Amino acid sequence: MSLNTFGHVFRVTTWGESHGPALGCVVDGCPPGIPLTEADIQPWLDRRRPGQSRFTTQRREEDLVAILSGTFGGMTTGTPIALEIRNTDQRSKDYGEIARSFRPGHADITYWQKYGIRDHRGGGRSSARETAARVAAGGVARKVLAALAPGLTITGYMLAMGSRSADRARFDMSEIGRNPFWVPDPVAAAEWADYLDAIRKDGNSVGALIEVVAAGVPPGLGAPVYGKLDADLAAAMMSINAVKGVEIGAGMAAAALTGTENADEIRSGAAGPVFLSNHAGGILGGISTGQDVVVRFAVKPTSSILTPRRTVTADGAETEIVTKGRHDPCVGIRAVPVGEAMMACVLLDHLLLDRAQTGGVRGRIGG
Amino acid sequence: MSLNTFGHVFRVTTWGESHGPALGCVVDGCPPGIPLTEADIQPWLDRRRPGQSRFTTQRREEDLVAILSGTFGGMTTGTPIALEIRNTDQRSKDYGEIARSFRPGHADITYWQKYGIRDHRGGGRSSARETAARVAAGGVARKVLAALAPGLTITGYMLAMGSRSADRARFDMSEIGRNPFWVPDPVAAAEWADYLDAIRKDGNSVGALIEVVAAGVPPGLGAPVYGKLDADLAAAMMSINAVKGVEIGAGMAAAALTGTENADEIRSGAAGPVFLSNHAGGILGGISTGQDVVVRFAVKPTSSILTPRRTVTADGAETEIVTKGRHDPCVGIRAVPVGEAMMACVLLDHLLLDRAQTGGVRGRIGG
Amino acid sequence: MSLNTFGHVFRVTTWGESHGPALGCVVDGCPPGIPLTEADIQPWLDRRRPGQSRFTTQRREEDLVAILSGTFGGMTTGTPIALEIRNTDQRSKDYGEIARSFRPGHADITYWQKYGIRDHRGGGRSSARETAARVAAGGVARKVLAALAPGLTITGYMLAMGSRSADRARFDMSEIGRNPFWVPDPVAAAEWADYLDAIRKDGNSVGALIEVVAAGVPPGLGAPVYGKLDADLAAAMMSINAVKGVEIGAGMAAAALTGTENADEIRSGAAGPVFLSNHAGGILGGISTGQDVVVRFAVKPTSSILTPRRTVTADGAETEIVTKGRHDPCVGIRAVPVGEAMMACVLLDHLLLDRAQTGGVRGRIGG
Amino acid sequence: MSLNTFGHVFRVTTWGESHGPALGCVVDGCPPGIPLTEADIQPWLDRRRPGQSRFTTQRREEDLVAILSGTFGGMTTGTPIALEIRNTDQRSKDYGEIARSFRPGHADITYWQKYGIRDHRGGGRSSARETAARVAAGGVARKVLAALAPGLTITGYMLAMGSRSADRARFDMSEIGRNPFWVPDPVAAAEWADYLDAIRKDGNSVGALIEVVAAGVPPGLGAPVYGKLDADLAAAMMSINAVKGVEIGAGMAAAALTGTENADEIRSGAAGPVFLSNHAGGILGGISTGQDVVVRFAVKPTSSILTPRRTVTADGAETEIVTKGRHDPCVGIRAVPVGEAMMACVLLDHLLLDRAQTGGVRGRIGG
Repeated sequence: MSLNTFGHVFRVTTWGESHGPALGCVVDGCPPGIPLTEADIQPWLDRRRPGQSRFTTQRREEDLVAILSGTFGGMTTGTPIALEIRNTDQRSKDYGEIARSFRPGHADITYWQKYGIRDHRGGGRSSARETAARVAAGGVARKVLAALAPGLTITGYMLAMGSRSADRARFDMSEIGRNPFWVPDPVAAAEWADYLDAIRKDGNSVGALIEVVAAGVPPGLGAPVYGKLDADLAAAMMSINAVKGVEIGAGMAAAALTGTENADEIRSGAAGPVFLSNHAGGILGGISTGQDVVVRFAVKPTSSILTPRRTVTADGAETEIVTKGRHDPCVGIRAVPVGEAMMACVLLDHLLLDRAQTGGVRGRIGG
Repeated sequence: MSLNTFGHVFRVTTWGESHGPALGCVVDGCPPGIPLTEADIQPWLDRRRPGQSRFTTQRREEDLVAILSGTFGGMTTGTPIALEIRNTDQRSKDYGEIARSFRPGHADITYWQKYGIRDHRGGGRSSARETAARVAAGGVARKVLAALAPGLTITGYMLAMGSRSADRARFDMSEIGRNPFWVPDPVAAAEWADYLDAIRKDGNSVGALIEVVAAGVPPGLGAPVYGKLDADLAAAMMSINAVKGVEIGAGMAAAALTGTENADEIRSGAAGPVFLSNHAGGILGGISTGQDVVVRFAVKPTSSILTPRRTVTADGAETEIVTKGRHDPCVGIRAVPVGEAMMACVLLDHLLLDRAQTGGVRGRIGG
Repeated sequence: MSLNTFGHVFRVTTWGESHGPALGCVVDGCPPGIPLTEADIQPWLDRRRPGQSRFTTQRREEDLVAILSGTFGGMTTGTPIALEIRNTDQRSKDYGEIARSFRPGHADITYWQKYGIRDHRGGGRSSARETAARVAAGGVARKVLAALAPGLTITGYMLAMGSRSADRARFDMSEIGRNPFWVPDPVAAAEWADYLDAIRKDGNSVGALIEVVAAGVPPGLGAPVYGKLDADLAAAMMSINAVKGVEIGAGMAAAALTGTENADEIRSGAAGPVFLSNHAGGILGGISTGQDVVVRFAVKPTSSILTPRRTVTADGAETEIVTKGRHDPCVGIRAVPVGEAMMACVLLDHLLLDRAQTGGVRGRIGG
Repeated sequence: MSLNTFGHVFRVTTWGESHGPALGCVVDGCPPGIPLTEADIQPWLDRRRPGQSRFTTQRREEDLVAILSGTFGGMTTGTPIALEIRNTDQRSKDYGEIARSFRPGHADITYWQKYGIRDHRGGGRSSARETAARVAAGGVARKVLAALAPGLTITGYMLAMGSRSADRARFDMSEIGRNPFWVPDPVAAAEWADYLDAIRKDGNSVGALIEVVAAGVPPGLGAPVYGKLDADLAAAMMSINAVKGVEIGAGMAAAALTGTENADEIRSGAAGPVFLSNHAGGILGGISTGQDVVVRFAVKPTSSILTPRRTVTADGAETEIVTKGRHDPCVGIRAVPVGEAMMACVLLDHLLLDRAQTGGVRGRIGG
């Protein structure tokens, strides 16, 4: 991981600003011979695309991805895959005020402090538009995972939004795609619509809690001690805009557990070990157990809000700022497909890394 | 970050098993001309050393560090610094049972699954003894930080242990070193002693919640979008044994906030911008703001417990395991100095990385 | 360096095939606040562009570079700079035969062996067109060097072509740009035109020997022992298509020297040490001395020739191949600006890396 | 490759100075389940060890290697392997003069310029003693190669020493181990002994030309465009002390070839393609062909000589220096096993890297 590159051997380098001509990424280290066309990637971008409901920014972007290299005859060749998305609806005029003042809670001020120059238009590089490139890369990763780890599935959804929580007792994963919140609880979906409408009309925003679960992950992915699967997942999720916390399995709640509670006891099954619980979130010692890999992350509320907030200008003058423009009242909604994409990239990277070191050989348990 | 190496330009590579002859690390990229002897590192190791109270493992290790390279006349030379700690109290006989069975909640099973071979003695590479090497590296990082960022301080402490929480209203940072729990709340310290005694006598263990705060961090450290300061901190903390969650600033609670609550408003002060709150934990857009950098992480309870747990053997036979030997009833206690060390390494790494890219130039605000 | 990425902290990731829609690169880690527009990069591309004389391929490419990210108001912002060059003159019909047979001396066969799939059109990723992306990245590096190391100059030229050598006694650096061979010897330039015409008409090709000299390089760039300036230069030059050897200073001839001959004796000058010779090529122990950094590399003859060569098909059938199409009779000619670009990238990378570790502080000699 | 670390996935980090207490390396990413004890590594160190003939330094070092981690029961476990060699014969008193003056041709001056501090004793980190760690790492790599690529052999030898060249017509590889020069030409071996005696008595030194050949390398190792096998070999060899040039196959002579000469024509054999020549040195487009991988490198003469050379002190005073102490009259002799070790490390690294990306699948030719 080096500034704008992510991954050990399946490496993704993203580039682009919110209001530049385009954004994209280069995917390096992709296995050859994997079927891949734009049609494999576009559906994931469509899920993340803004303007699909009244709960995301009304900016109109087609987010059409083009593959500029790395495939031949609809197959990956093993050479770097350049993916590009043209920006089409940049209204720079909306951003006059944020050129002068720093939005509280936003990267405006730190980009200025670090670089002494910033592309203020739409947040420049710190814009959530950067995540489109991640979703595109995740689309590539999913195609490779489908070939190398068939049966592996990745499912992301919202657990909570602001003060509202979904109820796991009502979870029905087929509901996820049926509401604008990617929430598997249909009752919550209905309630949240009213709640977020009120937040939005109030010129406010809210945070979100997201869970991403990967099922069918082979045991043995990960490595001690800095190349741990959970360390890379933590970095991957924390690198998403506005994320402030990452949990694996029991997560922060593990602090309150006793050893007897936390021990996921093991029995012997037909196909190997069977765990009786999953406090570990599918990872022990940084290495996958074969159970579901469970990651949660918290997204803070959108910093660009219509409610005035006190701030300063680059000249040091004290002022108030109201951020007009087209902003998501809950940027966490669109973080769901982004979290899935990062999960796909990390798992594939570790699958390839494991193949490098062990050749895929595994210690047997029983059988 | 690559398996056993951590950092971009200040790079730490650790090695060693619990019951091998020694453990250590190589610190590469250290600036030259920094005063450094073993006496600068040893105090940090002494804080982490086992056997200092009845609440940590009774294994007797001096944890004496030797500098084998990279200094001359008590000064760093810019060449790699090899640090080594000899193991002296390995009682391999204690570990007979865990050679056959996998401890639930422990890396025993995943190391076996991945590598088909494991050094079962004391957990081998997955042992918390590996963190001694991190603490040693952190000692080097602190010396460099003292030279390059004078005034920067790093303070770690426990916030909660199992079901018990400290009370921030009673925090007195001078209390941290006066109790075996590194807790700044003297009332909690007294209560926790009884609580942990009971847990220990019950053959059980508990988790812990730890906070590490860095004050005096210059603004401008970090980078978009995968080299974010918080992404690297998340990876650093999650890479510590038994950590299951990492938070920056408001952390997981950010999901429940509104935008008006979360915005850390800004006023103009004598020395630059002044923030009226710190939900951001000192990091916006992956870059430090100059406020305190605040990280929390949760440590799960020790997996090696005296209470029998159901498990399997490598042959697939179902059995129960009771882990005898000398184990910490709360491994989170010793994670406090480890978290501090990781904070030191990450901050220095980003300080050097920033110096590479920007030369330390900063955008001014006022003044 | 990782597959398609080059550099430690100034990192260049290139992508693109000869006959895809475009090629380009992402330049990461560039310092902020450096003036940069397409006009700064285009002249370097124009020097490398094919079709400028009868001695390079007649493919007509404008090689117009577009900056898609990383600048604002004509200045670098510190975020990744995406550079893109559209391919406009791909005549895939020329390449029918090489889809079936492997050109001897060409990467056709190894790409097939490794990946089991290859984009045969124009050599795909192995095409020398990839070097356009390097030249563009080098243009960025030169702008940064101009700001951080004013007075540093990089000059590349041909020393020999096939059986013909230039004569250093006749060198006039102002001649380099006046002939199609980038040779500073005007007599050689005239002779080589006839020589290469004959080679070309004969359906043959020739190799070339190129030297790149950087003057004004600050002392202290480089690092022991794998991050040596010369090790990185060697990798950089060897990574250019068709390069088979790299020399620093005395190069391969150093094997025949004695210690008394090879010692570049040192005297004391007004501005520091003065070396009486430069067998070292400006690098001792992997670190720059302040003398000219001198690198030479050999480019093999173009493998695509009109003379029939024996080869096999993917089916294993023995055949002969004649490579029609538009090929350089001496691909080394266009390697001159590429070598300069790689020199610029490596020097800047090490300048930033040194700034990270030492902050630019230097041990003084005299004064 | 990052300062003192080499390799993509099989990563070697070396540390240690000539006159410190020890030197060593950490080998990370090694496959598990490979038989490995000190006895597998020691023979390679014994070949490099000083003091074995009158033609190498008379420093007496046992160079005994200890494995401190990463193995269990004589097998690699997949965790980092720490290798350590204690220094036993450091006579620091020999080095008084070089503490004050810079040896021409030596890294003394650049270490001082870069770091402002240097361990002058025996050259500190720039000493050829560092290569012992590489040879040890190479011993590990060879064991893994023996398991993963049985039949792969690596043979290094001297081609020339100073003004004397061996004659390929007389080459008998079984002679290599029978003379102190690792030269396969017995006639040359006899002549060179007299020649080097004269050089040594004259207080002088000479350079050397070394060739390392790897046979049995599978096709398909390497990668475009910066991860080329030859680019990594070039960096690996150039990173060895005193190396000034690296060649692959035809090397620098490729510049003088025509395309018809350089084309290694291909015929169809029982086991796949058969090349009729090997100008490519076994590498096309950065990827191995299955032919012998042939690398040559030139080592400059030892800079520490008894003949007075003009130099300066750190104060800028002009002086002369005569380097007493125990120095190799031809440091290239001991570079032979070092070159072999680097070849082993690079090949294994690329074998694992290829396994990551392609899973070892290969495009078939015929059959």
